[in-house]
Amino acid sequence: MKIFDEIESEVQSYARSFPRIFNKAKGEFLYDEEGNKYLDFLAGAGTLNYGHNNPIFKEALLQYISNDGITHGLDMHTRAKGEFLEAFNEIILKPRGYEYVMQFTGPTGTNAVEAAIKLARNVTGRETIVSFTNGFHGVTLGSLALTGNSHHRGAAGVSLNGNIRMPYDGYLGEGIDTTAYLDKVLSDSSSGVDKPAAVIVETVQGEGGINVASLDWLRNLEAVCRKHDILLIVDDIQTGCGRTGNYFSFETAGIKPDIVTLSKSLSGYGLPFAVVLFRPELDRWKPGEHNGTFRGNNLAFVTAKIAIEHYWADHQFANDITRKGEYISKSLRSIVAKYGEGNFAQCGRGMMQGINCVNGDLANKITRKAFHNGLIIETSGADDHVVKFLCPLTITDVNLRKGITIVEQAIKEVCSEEKIIPGLVNYFEPQKLAS
Amino acid sequence: MKIFDEIESEVQSYARSFPRIFNKAKGEFLYDEEGNKYLDFLAGAGTLNYGHNNPIFKEALLQYISNDGITHGLDMHTRAKGEFLEAFNEIILKPRGYEYVMQFTGPTGTNAVEAAIKLARNVTGRETIVSFTNGFHGVTLGSLALTGNSHHRGAAGVSLNGNIRMPYDGYLGEGIDTTAYLDKVLSDSSSGVDKPAAVIVETVQGEGGINVASLDWLRNLEAVCRKHDILLIVDDIQTGCGRTGNYFSFETAGIKPDIVTLSKSLSGYGLPFAVVLFRPELDRWKPGEHNGTFRGNNLAFVTAKIAIEHYWADHQFANDITRKGEYISKSLRSIVAKYGEGNFAQCGRGMMQGINCVNGDLANKITRKAFHNGLIIETSGADDHVVKFLCPLTITDVNLRKGITIVEQAIKEVCSEEKIIPGLVNYFEPQKLAS
Amino acid sequence: MKIFDEIESEVQSYARSFPRIFNKAKGEFLYDEEGNKYLDFLAGAGTLNYGHNNPIFKEALLQYISNDGITHGLDMHTRAKGEFLEAFNEIILKPRGYEYVMQFTGPTGTNAVEAAIKLARNVTGRETIVSFTNGFHGVTLGSLALTGNSHHRGAAGVSLNGNIRMPYDGYLGEGIDTTAYLDKVLSDSSSGVDKPAAVIVETVQGEGGINVASLDWLRNLEAVCRKHDILLIVDDIQTGCGRTGNYFSFETAGIKPDIVTLSKSLSGYGLPFAVVLFRPELDRWKPGEHNGTFRGNNLAFVTAKIAIEHYWADHQFANDITRKGEYISKSLRSIVAKYGEGNFAQCGRGMMQGINCVNGDLANKITRKAFHNGLIIETSGADDHVVKFLCPLTITDVNLRKGITIVEQAIKEVCSEEKIIPGLVNYFEPQKLAS
Amino acid sequence: MKIFDEIESEVQSYARSFPRIFNKAKGEFLYDEEGNKYLDFLAGAGTLNYGHNNPIFKEALLQYISNDGITHGLDMHTRAKGEFLEAFNEIILKPRGYEYVMQFTGPTGTNAVEAAIKLARNVTGRETIVSFTNGFHGVTLGSLALTGNSHHRGAAGVSLNGNIRMPYDGYLGEGIDTTAYLDKVLSDSSSGVDKPAAVIVETVQGEGGINVASLDWLRNLEAVCRKHDILLIVDDIQTGCGRTGNYFSFETAGIKPDIVTLSKSLSGYGLPFAVVLFRPELDRWKPGEHNGTFRGNNLAFVTAKIAIEHYWADHQFANDITRKGEYISKSLRSIVAKYGEGNFAQCGRGMMQGINCVNGDLANKITRKAFHNGLIIETSGADDHVVKFLCPLTITDVNLRKGITIVEQAIKEVCSEEKIIPGLVNYFEPQKLAS
Repeated sequence: MKIFDEIESEVQSYARSFPRIFNKAKGEFLYDEEGNKYLDFLAGAGTLNYGHNNPIFKEALLQYISNDGITHGLDMHTRAKGEFLEAFNEIILKPRGYEYVMQFTGPTGTNAVEAAIKLARNVTGRETIVSFTNGFHGVTLGSLALTGNSHHRGAAGVSLNGNIRMPYDGYLGEGIDTTAYLDKVLSDSSSGVDKPAAVIVETVQGEGGINVASLDWLRNLEAVCRKHDILLIVDDIQTGCGRTGNYFSFETAGIKPDIVTLSKSLSGYGLPFAVVLFRPELDRWKPGEHNGTFRGNNLAFVTAKIAIEHYWADHQFANDITRKGEYISKSLRSIVAKYGEGNFAQCGRGMMQGINCVNGDLANKITRKAFHNGLIIETSGADDHVVKFLCPLTITDVNLRKGITIVEQAIKEVCSEEKIIPGLVNYFEPQKLAS
Repeated sequence: MKIFDEIESEVQSYARSFPRIFNKAKGEFLYDEEGNKYLDFLAGAGTLNYGHNNPIFKEALLQYISNDGITHGLDMHTRAKGEFLEAFNEIILKPRGYEYVMQFTGPTGTNAVEAAIKLARNVTGRETIVSFTNGFHGVTLGSLALTGNSHHRGAAGVSLNGNIRMPYDGYLGEGIDTTAYLDKVLSDSSSGVDKPAAVIVETVQGEGGINVASLDWLRNLEAVCRKHDILLIVDDIQTGCGRTGNYFSFETAGIKPDIVTLSKSLSGYGLPFAVVLFRPELDRWKPGEHNGTFRGNNLAFVTAKIAIEHYWADHQFANDITRKGEYISKSLRSIVAKYGEGNFAQCGRGMMQGINCVNGDLANKITRKAFHNGLIIETSGADDHVVKFLCPLTITDVNLRKGITIVEQAIKEVCSEEKIIPGLVNYFEPQKLAS
Repeated sequence: MKIFDEIESEVQSYARSFPRIFNKAKGEFLYDEEGNKYLDFLAGAGTLNYGHNNPIFKEALLQYISNDGITHGLDMHTRAKGEFLEAFNEIILKPRGYEYVMQFTGPTGTNAVEAAIKLARNVTGRETIVSFTNGFHGVTLGSLALTGNSHHRGAAGVSLNGNIRMPYDGYLGEGIDTTAYLDKVLSDSSSGVDKPAAVIVETVQGEGGINVASLDWLRNLEAVCRKHDILLIVDDIQTGCGRTGNYFSFETAGIKPDIVTLSKSLSGYGLPFAVVLFRPELDRWKPGEHNGTFRGNNLAFVTAKIAIEHYWADHQFANDITRKGEYISKSLRSIVAKYGEGNFAQCGRGMMQGINCVNGDLANKITRKAFHNGLIIETSGADDHVVKFLCPLTITDVNLRKGITIVEQAIKEVCSEEKIIPGLVNYFEPQKLAS
Repeated sequence: MKIFDEIESEVQSYARSFPRIFNKAKGEFLYDEEGNKYLDFLAGAGTLNYGHNNPIFKEALLQYISNDGITHGLDMHTRAKGEFLEAFNEIILKPRGYEYVMQFTGPTGTNAVEAAIKLARNVTGRETIVSFTNGFHGVTLGSLALTGNSHHRGAAGVSLNGNIRMPYDGYLGEGIDTTAYLDKVLSDSSSGVDKPAAVIVETVQGEGGINVASLDWLRNLEAVCRKHDILLIVDDIQTGCGRTGNYFSFETAGIKPDIVTLSKSLSGYGLPFAVVLFRPELDRWKPGEHNGTFRGNNLAFVTAKIAIEHYWADHQFANDITRKGEYISKSLRSIVAKYGEGNFAQCGRGMMQGINCVNGDLANKITRKAFHNGLIIETSGADDHVVKFLCPLTITDVNLRKGITIVEQAIKEVCSEEKIIPGLVNYFEPQKLAS
């Protein structure tokens, strides 16, 4: 560990929660140098939907490298890229009736978001982007302006402009449709809210605390965008690639975003990769206007293509995610019921769920205990108050149950130690001022 | 090619200059699907300093993947990361007397630049960054503000703030040290130039047209930074990893930047990878403040470590680059002499050189002819007026000579077709107003 | 009129509504060159609370000028300034228990707002200012960012930053306290709403359409500011100097703003004059940091002092405003009742009231008819849909009744011509999306 | 004095240099409450070109007020405004061949600058404005971005965007035409300097230290603007109204700015007043887009009209300014010669001149001594190092000589006390780095 202390920057974060040196991984398991085995409910923060080092992809990757396939080709045409595009078009886009063109950006989510908002601004000639409370879209300057978290925002060192913040679904309390507020300010020429280029939204907010937008809300949001001629961007970086049940998280709502960002699990193998999808009419890019040295990671093309062909050619995988998602919901609700509504709440959709623990201390104690028992699991949310379940979608039922059981045991112990009793004021209600 | 036309965005750029489907690469050669072989003087825009699919790295990579080494581990400690850090520390940093800590950012150059400027802003509490005419630092919003090219800047769709533009070495003409102008505005409390957090500079401007900063100018720049307590960032993304002769491009000048960005050839194998180096006293990052899903590309750690061990443990490789660099200089100067000073000028340092063709049409005709003759070579500069020689550093002497000969032949033909005669007004002089 | 058409800019606005050449004014009357007399219910957009050329002030002014009193003295001490400060302190501040220091800014409202927000930003070290939907604070760049109206905002030609827009009282519909939303985003570290320096608010929005903040809402707003350690700025430029009944419009709510801006009727005589008041602890200005050539309009000091002494030494004037305000309310409500709820609504407080006509065409027809009948009255609001009653506070009862009668007659005629019938959807309800 | 200490903000500045209570003024003299008389070489920072309370204007003003002429009429047409426009058109514009339209803004210089840059941005659709080192254009946010002084800039509390800073004439040393640098960055598509909307310039920088742009430089600047289709704004607020010899300061150079701002001495009597002049083709304002309560100060119209008629109907006044200007130059050069080149330098043009004292301490000691001897005179420049001679243009020859003699005496005494010897390094040369 000495070298890490010596020359790796203090910015490191997960390494603090899981202070081991890992050297091997397979499926839903990580192994450390001392041979310990960890069940992985973090899964690269949603990057490993198909598990670590998925053997199907691995074989193709090894063969490609052995054959001296193109590794780095800037944005030149390569056979690997062509085959990926074919697979994505035939298996993902066409059956869903989506006509999107694809842009390869620098291979990180934030680069894709930066490209998406540039495009929206250029196409519309407008400057601002609507984003939501508790949204997370990355930490380069353009994306950071859209990100809610003050920990990340504070690091900018400059003012973050070009953004209009709106309340996410549920933020103003039960029964208030926050898209009506958006509609009102856009309809009111004196609202002080300039007409934006686009709205960017996560259908489930991952880093923001596993907050779920209802399907109705998503449809209303799309309607407001259409009414005011504003582009709708779905940031599907964490929610896409099957995480919530379908390939795209917005399919269930029946909406058609103008622009979609994908990354994380796109390559399937954990390789850096990111793309932007958009309606062909929006493709007003001039050659090379948005560029980047690694904007065609050919190794990622190889595994991404196999991932699509193997998992998405029929409905079996999607059905399996739905089934497991329901199991997770049921299990978490049962835990919540046991340990008292008010202290804990289930949240999430598909295989992107969480237990809201109201405060971060509690959530942290739980995840630390879980790690002690061989489970890698993290928190999210404004106060790190949500224990976040993001296991590989390919996890076995046995291991899924095992992971949940470890968390339940941790909750039980923590509640006992902390003398937690039910009946706290519900955190999510709008604040009332002390009179 | 149909699928590319059908669903890949119009943003593609290199694919337009080299309209082939490539499927194999080795050393300094690329191969297309029809079995044609191309000598590569673009080398991933400086990403393939060690050639395509370098066999030494390839073997290590295959073994690592076969053994199910960690592919994606967020920023957790892994053995691969530890070994890379050890090698970098022992072979690169210590012998040069550099005490830097290393931050792993999202694996693209622009992510590293974004982290560097955030750090500079946070540490100093100041907002602006000085950058230079014709500089290029990436296209995400923070980096784009520092980038000079209007083609890229225009795509932002919002104003690009937080930047102070200064004339690069030579921009105000012979005999004017532009660092004195910087010093003057910083010394003058009424200059309207607010005290910046940092200066960011490329020692040779790649995208800007292979403009070389003199060693004296770099030393003066460092002195101005020290005098005014401003951080000095060297963006060594394209110039580093041996491109100009030493591992870091600034070694020759004897300066010690506060912050250094590296990417492109860092992994050696063309894999996405980027880091920021900085003085330990500047390491005021809070955990996870600047994050990113792919900020630890373990496959890249594996090849980067071998690259360092194999090429940088002694001076042989550096000496070889210097030798080849001198050969390139001599050859290009001889071409320039033949075809008339005023039309063409040699520029560059080490193995980062170019022929300035004064206008972009001419340069383009030359590179198109070269491609027709089996050479992949690109232009750079404000008007794409510089033919840029960026071959792998590991190229054989025979192939180096061959590539240069192809360019010379292309120049000869173009000059004959275009009836080029010597004696044009020198492009680089400061503009004079028509009276 | 020829010279106006010939060389006065197209930016002129009131001159279009009232196309006469005026050359004399007295009390609540304006006279044009042809000797026509107009009852003035615009009163310099709230600048002439004491009527035109108030004879009490006029005498003092003539004497001061005759005696060669200082006219222009930059910010040097003058007897006129000293006497104004004494009067303001003894008659306005002390009896109300306000300990404010006073800053003289450039003599326009927007200069005062610019100074106020600079001070707030410097004292807190924070950048953003919360302002409200439909707020108006001026059109220089700092104030314009806080102003809601898109007509004015659009003229900036650059992005308007440094502002957080919040819904004003009533904007989210009945029963929703919008200060609770403000409190929630400020309490939520991941809301994406950075902690602001200050909140700026008008207690009644003049240009925004005579929207009244309830006293409870103002108190809640103050409480949110205190809870989060944010400065409260009341922009009392149009609402102050007695317009709503008391000298300061916020007195009734019992709140104590940290910073107050005053202008418009401050001089009493319509002379350019503006000040900022703030708590002494906030007075961290360095000498001359915010300056301006005309920041001590001595002629205005002279009349402002008399205005305070004559009208505010006892409660008589305030009581009279209240009495007239009640008369206006009663009268407007009666008009509204006659011509159908849904088409028209009374709004406002004190002698700052309006009739909301739901749409701008209607309101415009009404004011045009009124002008034809000798009444100068204007509209305000996002769609110019509110007929705004802003007569001098010193108006006689007879003339007040006369002006209201002219408007009623105009409404009657317009309703008849337009075949207006009751029962339109209430404009002020939050938008509902078409399902 | 108690009341000033008690409730006037710390922002006061001139009151600190001249700690008296003034109560009367006439021509070039100010009087304090104790009956002391001061010769005024500050003249309202250039606002009192025609002296204090000029008796010709005073009579007209008294009569207008006595007759109940319109005092405040928003932007409505009034006879006073019409007559001012006629006089300005016939006496100032037409004889000079200028076809400008006039916009009345809020009555301060900074409001005029804000309007000017809005117009430039809207007409061109571009965002940035080029301004110069040591320029001063006001302290509201839009103008402040163009202002060089860090004392004022630092008070913004937010970043000042939308500005490109260029070196003023002479800033890069003798023999370097800084407009060529501007031309070069505008011609270079990769310079990183975006094409601006406009250039704003003072022909002599007042607050910046009485720096004079040569007539050639002004002509070159106009040529660069024409070449690149950029608007040229001359900020003639301090330099206009005769200060440098002609009514407009730019007449001598023979240039025709697209936009001109005027304020300060425009009313003649020290009354708040400001206008923007621009080519009719640029008049794309929509009604009321840029507004302001006091944008038609009728009292100022009255005196401004008389000022134009009385002083500018023939060449006599202009000739007299030139004659006095030459006398000032000669006198200051003689003082400089006596007390050693290197310590002092004469600067300026017309009746806007100064003695550069190299450092601010020295300059301050001189002005303090002068005040002690009955002369009000101030410093300007980055370090307050220039003693600034800004007496009324109407000053008698005797008093002009007297004022200069007081300064010379002060210099003599200070040099003796401080043991000043000739031969300091010239402050104005570009900085050289210590080797």
